[in-house]
Parts: sequence; C-alpha cells; structure tokens
Amino acid sequence: MELAMERHLKGESLREGQSLVADPRLPGKCYPAVIDNFILNGPTVDVHAVESFVHHAMEMIMDEAVKKASDVQEKVCEWRSPEQLKELLDLDLRDEGEPESKILQRCRDAIRYSIKTGHRHFFNQLYAGMEPYSMVASFITEAIKTSLYTYEVAPVFTLMEETVLRKMIEMVGWEEGGDGIFNPGGSMSNMYAVNLARYHYCPDIKEDGLVAVQRLVILASQECHYSISKSAALLGIGTKNVYMVPSDSRGKMIPSALEELIKTAKSEGAVPFMVNATAGTTVLGAFDPIEEIADICEKYNLWLHVDACWGGAALMSDRHKHLLKGIHRVNSVAWNPHKMLMVSLQCSAFLVRDKTSLLQRCHSAQASYLFQQDKFYDVSYDTGDKSVQCSRKPDAFKFWLMWKALGTRELEQRVDRALAMARHLAQAIKKREGFTLLMEPEYANVCFWYVPPSMRSLPAGPELWEKLHTVAPVVKERMMKKGSLMVGYQAHHGQPNFFRMVVISPQVSREDLDFVLDEIHSLGKDL
Amino acid sequence: MELAMERHLKGESLREGQSLVADPRLPGKCYPAVIDNFILNGPTVDVHAVESFVHHAMEMIMDEAVKKASDVQEKVCEWRSPEQLKELLDLDLRDEGEPESKILQRCRDAIRYSIKTGHRHFFNQLYAGMEPYSMVASFITEAIKTSLYTYEVAPVFTLMEETVLRKMIEMVGWEEGGDGIFNPGGSMSNMYAVNLARYHYCPDIKEDGLVAVQRLVILASQECHYSISKSAALLGIGTKNVYMVPSDSRGKMIPSALEELIKTAKSEGAVPFMVNATAGTTVLGAFDPIEEIADICEKYNLWLHVDACWGGAALMSDRHKHLLKGIHRVNSVAWNPHKMLMVSLQCSAFLVRDKTSLLQRCHSAQASYLFQQDKFYDVSYDTGDKSVQCSRKPDAFKFWLMWKALGTRELEQRVDRALAMARHLAQAIKKREGFTLLMEPEYANVCFWYVPPSMRSLPAGPELWEKLHTVAPVVKERMMKKGSLMVGYQAHHGQPNFFRMVVISPQVSREDLDFVLDEIHSLGKDL
Repeated sequence: MELAMERHLKGESLREGQSLVADPRLPGKCYPAVIDNFILNGPTVDVHAVESFVHHAMEMIMDEAVKKASDVQEKVCEWRSPEQLKELLDLDLRDEGEPESKILQRCRDAIRYSIKTGHRHFFNQLYAGMEPYSMVASFITEAIKTSLYTYEVAPVFTLMEETVLRKMIEMVGWEEGGDGIFNPGGSMSNMYAVNLARYHYCPDIKEDGLVAVQRLVILASQECHYSISKSAALLGIGTKNVYMVPSDSRGKMIPSALEELIKTAKSEGAVPFMVNATAGTTVLGAFDPIEEIADICEKYNLWLHVDACWGGAALMSDRHKHLLKGIHRVNSVAWNPHKMLMVSLQCSAFLVRDKTSLLQRCHSAQASYLFQQDKFYDVSYDTGDKSVQCSRKPDAFKFWLMWKALGTRELEQRVDRALAMARHLAQAIKKREGFTLLMEPEYANVCFWYVPPSMRSLPAGPELWEKLHTVAPVVKERMMKKGSLMVGYQAHHGQPNFFRMVVISPQVSREDLDFVLDEIHSLGKDL
Repeated sequence: MELAMERHLKGESLREGQSLVADPRLPGKCYPAVIDNFILNGPTVDVHAVESFVHHAMEMIMDEAVKKASDVQEKVCEWRSPEQLKELLDLDLRDEGEPESKILQRCRDAIRYSIKTGHRHFFNQLYAGMEPYSMVASFITEAIKTSLYTYEVAPVFTLMEETVLRKMIEMVGWEEGGDGIFNPGGSMSNMYAVNLARYHYCPDIKEDGLVAVQRLVILASQECHYSISKSAALLGIGTKNVYMVPSDSRGKMIPSALEELIKTAKSEGAVPFMVNATAGTTVLGAFDPIEEIADICEKYNLWLHVDACWGGAALMSDRHKHLLKGIHRVNSVAWNPHKMLMVSLQCSAFLVRDKTSLLQRCHSAQASYLFQQDKFYDVSYDTGDKSVQCSRKPDAFKFWLMWKALGTRELEQRVDRALAMARHLAQAIKKREGFTLLMEPEYANVCFWYVPPSMRSLPAGPELWEKLHTVAPVVKERMMKKGSLMVGYQAHHGQPNFFRMVVISPQVSREDLDFVLDEIHSLGKDL
C-alpha cells in the first residue's frame, strides 16, 4: 500500500477544496501521502474558522481594551491578590484544547484583570497612555511576524529603522551622522554603550576576554539607572567597578566629583574607560550637566554615554532641549521613545556617533546561514549582526508611523504640554495643605510627600520621617484596591517614602491632576 | 490674569464635554490653567476619532495581513530593491502630520511590501506560518501595553509566565521543579546560561569582574548557534575562549572530542566552566548526544546548557522526545516556542534547574523605586529583577493562550506532523532527478542541492562544487523577484551552497512541498 502511494507521489496535486482521498480508479489522481499515520495532503487548518476567531477577538480588544482605556469612569485596575487571580484565571494548561468562545472569554479576563496603563489616572511608570498610531503599528508587526535581521525578510522595517535612527541622530545634533539600533529596552541600550566603549578602548577584548586587561572602571552618578550596574555585572566588569559619582541636591552629577573619582581610579592602577551621564533620572528627573562632563571626558579621553531613555524626549522641544545641552559632543545615547513620546512598548534606540562600523565590528559574528555575502542585493542593509540578539522586533516602525501621523511639531507640543502639566502640578502641590514638594521639578517627575492631618503638627525629625515613611505604601495599597489611581512611590537616599508623579499623556488634563491630589488626601487622611 | 486664574485652581473641575473656557461671571466655575501658553484643562485628544482610526486599521489588518497570508494565490513577497522601496514608502519624517486616510494607506503599503511569513510558501526562517491564538494574544499585550517587572503592573501576565514556565520545566523532566524567564530571543537565553554558569562557578565575578579570575572556557560544538560566541564576546570571556568541539558527519557533537578539549583547556591552565549542547542545530537540525555529554559534565563538574531553541518542540512529542534524551540531567535550557511551536515572535524561554534563586541572585540590582520591599502583596511575584532587562514584554501570554486553545495533544500532533512532512520531503527529493539530499533529516531541516541539467553530467569534484555553489543564490534571487517562494540557503563547512527547507506550519501540505521542488527546478533549470 505505501509503495503504491509513493508511486503516485509525483502525480497531480490536489486543488484547493478537492477531496483528500482521491478515487484510486481514476488515473492521474493523487493518493494521499501518509507518514506516521499523518495524511499530509491538504492543509489541516480551517482558514475560515481562523478568520472568524481573529475578527471576533479584534472586536473584543476594541471594546474591552481600547475603548475602556479612554473612559475615565472605568477603573485603572481591578486588584486581585495572586491567590485570588490564580483561581479566577484557571491557569492550568491541559491536554485538550478549549472552544473559541471559551478562549474569547479568557482574553476578556486577561484584559479585565490587567492594569489599564492607557487610563488617564495611571501614573505608575515612565510610560502611560494609549497612543493609537503606534498601537496600530504594533498590531501590524504582530500580524506580519518578522524579525529584523536581514533586508530579505524585513525590507520595509529595515528602511524605517534607518530613517528613524537618522532623524533621532539629527536631533541629538551629530552633524556628521552616526549609527544606531533599536533594542528591547533601555537597559540593553546602556549595555551596548558599555560594550562599545570597552571595544573602543581595546578591541582585543572581544576575542581574548578580560583576562589580560587591567581593571576597567565605569563612572556614573549615584542617581543613574540600575542597568549600568547590571551591565557591569553581565559584561564581566564587576559592579564594584562602577564608581558612583556624588550628585547634588537636585540629583545632578557633580563634575568636580567626577574628576576626583577618575583620578582615584587611575591612582589605583585601574582604567576608567567610560562615563555614563543621565538625562532624566528615574526618580527625580534630573539632568546631569553634559557640557561640563564632556569637557572632563575629553580631557581624560573617556567614552561619554548619555542615558537619555527618559529625558531624550526633551530633544524634540525647542523650549526644553537646553536640558541636554552638549549632547552633540557625546559618543553614544540611549533614548526610549516608548517613555515620554508614548510609542508602544518597547521602542528603545541606541545611537552612536562613530562612523566606522564600531557597532557592527563590536557585535558581529557573521553567521553564514543568515548573513550570506553572495546575496543579490546590497547586504549592508542586513543590519542584524549589529545586534547581540538574533531575532529582533521591528520596533522602529511603531515610532515611524506615529511620527508620520503627528509630525515633529505635534510631538514637540506634547512634550511641552507634559512639562507644563508637571509645573502646574508642582504649583498645585505647593498650595495644598498636607502636600510637600520634594523639589521643583526639572522635568516631568513631580515628587512629593502627603502628610496626613495627624502628622502635620509633628516637628521635622526622625519621628515624623518614620511615620511619614509608612504613609505612601498604605495609600498605594488603598488606591489599587479601590482601582481609582496608580502612582509610584519610593524611598530615596534615606528620605522617607514619597510619591513620584510623571505626567506624559496628552489625554491627561489639569482636572486629572486635581483628582490625584484629592484622591491621595481622601485615601490617606485617616493615617 | 495669571494670578486670577491661579486663585481658581482649586475650583470645581470641568465635567467631561464642558466648555474649556468657563464663564468668569459664574461663581464656582473653573478658569483654564495656562502654563507656557498651554491650556491644561481637558484632554487634547479626540477619543472618538482615535477609536474610529483604530477600528478602520484593524479591518485593514484583517484584510491585508491576516486573510492574504492564508491565500496561497497571493505572493510570498513583493520584492523591491532598497532604492525602489525608499521611493515607494516616502520614508521622510516631517514637521506636519498626515491625515488618517494617508496613514491607513501607509499601513497598507507597509504590509504590501513586507514578507508574508505566514504564507504557506515561506520556508526561509526557523519560524513560519500564522498562528491565530498567539497573534490575538500579541494584539492584547500591545493594547494592554505593560511591562513584566512587577505583579503590581502586570498581574495577569506574571502568573501566566509562571504557569507556562512550570509546564515547560515539567516537559524537560526536572521533577524537583526549577526557575526560568522569558527573554527577547534565544540569543539572550543562551547569554543568560553563560552568565549563570559563570556565576555558579564564581559568584564574586558579579561584583569584582573578571580581573582576578583565571581564563574561563566555554565548550560548544562547531555547529552551535552564533549566540554562544556573541555571549562570550559580550560577557568579557572572549570568543577565542569558546572551544569548538568537532561534530560528526551528521552535525552532532563528538563526546570524546569534548572530553579531549576539556583536558586541553585544563592543561593550558584555563578553567572550563560550561558546555553548550545544541538540540536542533540551525542548519542541519542535528541533536547533540545529551546523555553522553551529561556524563562528561558530571565527571568534570561543568555546567551543562542545552540550546534547544529550535529542537525543544520535540519535547512535546512522545514519538520524538528521544532526540533530547538526558535533558532532565542538564542545568539550563533555552527553548523558543516561537519557532516550531509557531507562537508569535518573540517567545523564548530560559529554564534553569536550580532552586536556590540563582537567576535572581545573578542578575538582581534591587532598584528601590521598582522593587520596593514594603509593598502590600507578596513581592516574590515581582520577577523583574531576574532579568537583565528593565521593561520586558509579556511574551509568555502568547504561548499560554495558544496552549489553552489547542491543548497539549494538538501541539504534539503539530510537531509530529511537521516531522512527518520533513521525512516525506526527503523521500520526494531522493526520487527527483537533479535533487540531492545532503543527509537524512533528523528533525525538520531538509538540506539539499538542486543540480541544474547542465551540471548533471559533471563528475563530483571541485569544478562541480564551484558551479553548484552559484546555483542557490540565483534561484533564491529569482524566487524572490517572482514572489512565489522563500527558502533559505547557505554554504556550510566548505560544502557548496545548498537549500535548507524547514517545515513548521500545519497550513503546509504535501502539495506545497511538491510545489517547492517544482518551482526550484523551474527557476533553475537553465543554469
């Protein structure tokens, strides 16, 4: 029987819709090919059922996720403890599948119990709000399902990435141009900076490793993002070799302290090779003085990287770009359009001023099955070997489409409006009894304490700090259980827990900020 | 005027839809707050216009991307050179935005000129096909827009990741359980393995760096994925310190050669600390003999990592899981459900057998603003500090939803069917004149040469190899320009360029495989 079938393997193919099992009496018709009991003729998937499911799911996403996120009457979150949520979601994966109606219900539940980060009262992270153009672009990249390593398999997205990078490089002010790549998150971009700086200092490390090299030192402010330490750990440099430069009371790196630490490292026989300046620190939104730091880096011949993941958006604004004055002098920049510019997660650019293919040389491994050199097109468009990843998402498209839709001017307006909003919030806080501003905001971070009435008469001192420290966590718990609001809090350099509000989205209005202060008071006034 | 306004800042808030500029004659009404010329009252975004745009875009994605991908009459690709495509796409980003109709057209163009990786005749990568459940899940994660670092901001996805990891760990066979995390790609997972193995060998490296440490050596087969070398470069180990173990003619690591190289490294005074075995090599689909390698790793006390990014899917199959025999003995596994199991890109799991929080200890940086310890819920659910990333996509949800919909049995069936299809293709190739199989497929990779009639009479030897080497690139160029098919090719260890077909999707039938062979012949017969 199997032999008989195999004699027919080269026979006429089945046409779409034709019966799988052909009539053996008819000459020229195709017997089914069977291996391991699988009939291999014809597809096994019902295309129409698939389309119907996707269609219904899209309607549901529209109703449950998109529309509800923009309705301020909806809850920000529907809090459940891990134990409760496990019960509700019926997480177990079983041998048998479930019908589509059940799967649609599961989708609905997943949305319901997820945080509505697009809600106007979500201020918990350095991203927020729903941006329709980049969201649609992200749907397209999911439907297209490709990976950004070769032009061959991602022609459109390769060119869009190049365009967006060039435009961002222009805004940084590198008149000679530069190079870059989008990464899955700003931590990766900062890691790239460390690796490139190291490769620039000593290319042999790529092949030989760190064994024969003197102890390498990175300098960064004490306010820098934790990814600098994570990078030092991962790259074999060691977290102890990240020298933390003191910051001033506003959270800005003190240049003279930087120079002192460079000298210290050298006197220890170590090799400082890179300085990380931060443009928009995570907690305070502080900007390190790039110009003065660049002078020092030039003097000591150090790679200067700016982590502008959060603050880079200010480069879009004529009014605010002075915050990053001097950035055209630096070697590399990390900038996440998924934060202040509201591109869908993730959209993180790493930019480098070098024009000698440093990125490619530092990271390339020249896989022969992917980056063939005998292709019929210009393989300089195969950018994947610049990355330490293999498959990589086409994140730049999300920014490109949004930028096309809004234009540079509207992006600028949004940044300006968000920062105006932060100043308004700071003014409002100063006028409210029981609210104390940590400091005037330099950027979009507004940090403040809420002091409940019972603590307002206490003198400043350890007793008050200790009590105050417990307020934010309780108010946070209450806002989440009520579902009315999400704002982040943290302790910072020995100061008691305070709230950090970040205003990003153009959906947010002054009324929402009033609501935040009212709600915090209402939730915490009995403490 | 500004003072007057500020006196009203605490006044009654505007209700939805109320005029922005309140009547100053009416007491209790709210004046607009203006800062930097921005009126901050009321949102600036027209919610209904947004919803209408998203709705139209979703319809367009359904028609252009989803439906067309499943229509075999459509082209796989609409090839344009980079220069042509730049013209067609009008990439420039301008000051002014564009109307929605224009943006929808841009979306349509982006889809049109992208590769249809969901098409039944796309065989170019180790991913292919459209999987509706994971695609819908990916739409949901985009609409929800969150990051998987804390339970607070991603409760549903945190629990789903835990569930999926536990199930995958079960399939690996670690009866005591283990730990894991989803990463943006298998390269990252392999990098995690190197870092964990190193941390396990010497935890001090995290803080101190590699300065005081002896030269570290990784052992991997010559067929291993290039991410092992990339990891060695990035982690400061050095690419020269990846010792490439010879493979046999089937592409499998030779255990005795591994042991020899371990001895060599030791005799050089270096410290071998990790072996990378590959389950499903990229080109040949070969499986290293895990059981024998595990014996050697136990003998020399080395961390054994299995890169099962491609071959891990066989663990779903009772019939084929013998390919990974011994995997329950290894220390860590990388497994990409986005390959053979067809989950939307990216979905890459890193699994580790350790139960002592090695992943957390190795990668953590304890950021105070994100991983506060005074939260009101069990912070062991805040898994973000296990990652070297900060923001991280909730990729596990895509697998979870698909698994719920299909059940374990259907996943198994799909793997079995794909591997049956590969065997069928190999049989068909052996029967066709002018097609030569490189070797019997062990997995889903079917590697073969197409020999045009003009070369069929040439004796085996350098002249034939040289001519044959040029065939695949030309056929590839022609198939892409015609848009009929995409299959990968490469040279390998001095052999002339050959095609590598990988069969994955249940949409693919035996007729499609016949089409592939017919089409390659038709495109290359004049060469």
